Amino acid sequence: MRITSTSLKECEDLLRRVSIGRIACSLNDQPYVVPISFAYEAACLYFFSTAGKKIDCMRRNPRVCVQADEIVSPNHWTSVLVNGTFVELQEPQYTEQKEHARQLLSQTAQWWLTPLAERREHTGDLAIEPLFFRVDVVSMTGLRTVSEP
Amino acid sequence: MRITSTSLKECEDLLRRVSIGRIACSLNDQPYVVPISFAYEAACLYFFSTAGKKIDCMRRNPRVCVQADEIVSPNHWTSVLVNGTFVELQEPQYTEQKEHARQLLSQTAQWWLTPLAERREHTGDLAIEPLFFRVDVVSMTGLRTVSEP
Repeated sequence: MRITSTSLKECEDLLRRVSIGRIACSLNDQPYVVPISFAYEAACLYFFSTAGKKIDCMRRNPRVCVQADEIVSPNHWTSVLVNGTFVELQEPQYTEQKEHARQLLSQTAQWWLTPLAERREHTGDLAIEPLFFRVDVVSMTGLRTVSEP
Repeated sequence: MRITSTSLKECEDLLRRVSIGRIACSLNDQPYVVPISFAYEAACLYFFSTAGKKIDCMRRNPRVCVQADEIVSPNHWTSVLVNGTFVELQEPQYTEQKEHARQLLSQTAQWWLTPLAERREHTGDLAIEPLFFRVDVVSMTGLRTVSEP
């Protein structure tokens, strides 16, 4: 099996096709990684979350790493890695961007239930406010397998 | 959908069933996350790699976070998070542990090809030495969906 780097276009195409990735953040060099749904558009990744550990972490250190992949089999996969910067889409500064994120993410609507359900389980609070954030892409690289004849 | 914490036994059972996870490390608070195959046994995760960015990072900061999951559907999944400490299985100190890791990981043998193939692609070197390392579990938590009648 041979592995090669993907082009920027291949990276972007994958990020448009898949809607679940893993986001890693770090505080005082303690890394933290969780699965998360996202939407990609024009060098930005958009996310939905509720308050909690990853948001606390990214508010204090906005440098994040996002990984997404398509694994068809051990010999047939593509993986993309994004280094980027966390930007919380708070009102009033980001009212329009927040609405845009909401619309983009509504296309993977089932996954919205997850963080809300989790937070409600922990807090018993039915009025939890969803948070939206963006990751501005600083660099993007990918690897993929090459099928050989 | 309801989400609940998993027991330690459920976390361990998942880590024994799955063989691919994501490992996050961090250097100077720049996180880095990549997919990786592993084997779990007795509060340790065992890994195979080649030299490269993640190994450089973990040698300098041994605090890592490993995430693994089983996603059947958006409403049916379990995710486990491990905080742990990187220990490189170098000889002669860890000769026996390294052999043990090799044996455990050989059960997911196809995945071994991946890092070797990648490094060869980059370096043209056919004599790359595989590296083995262990992550000693410091804490382990999990979440899973609860099916409701």
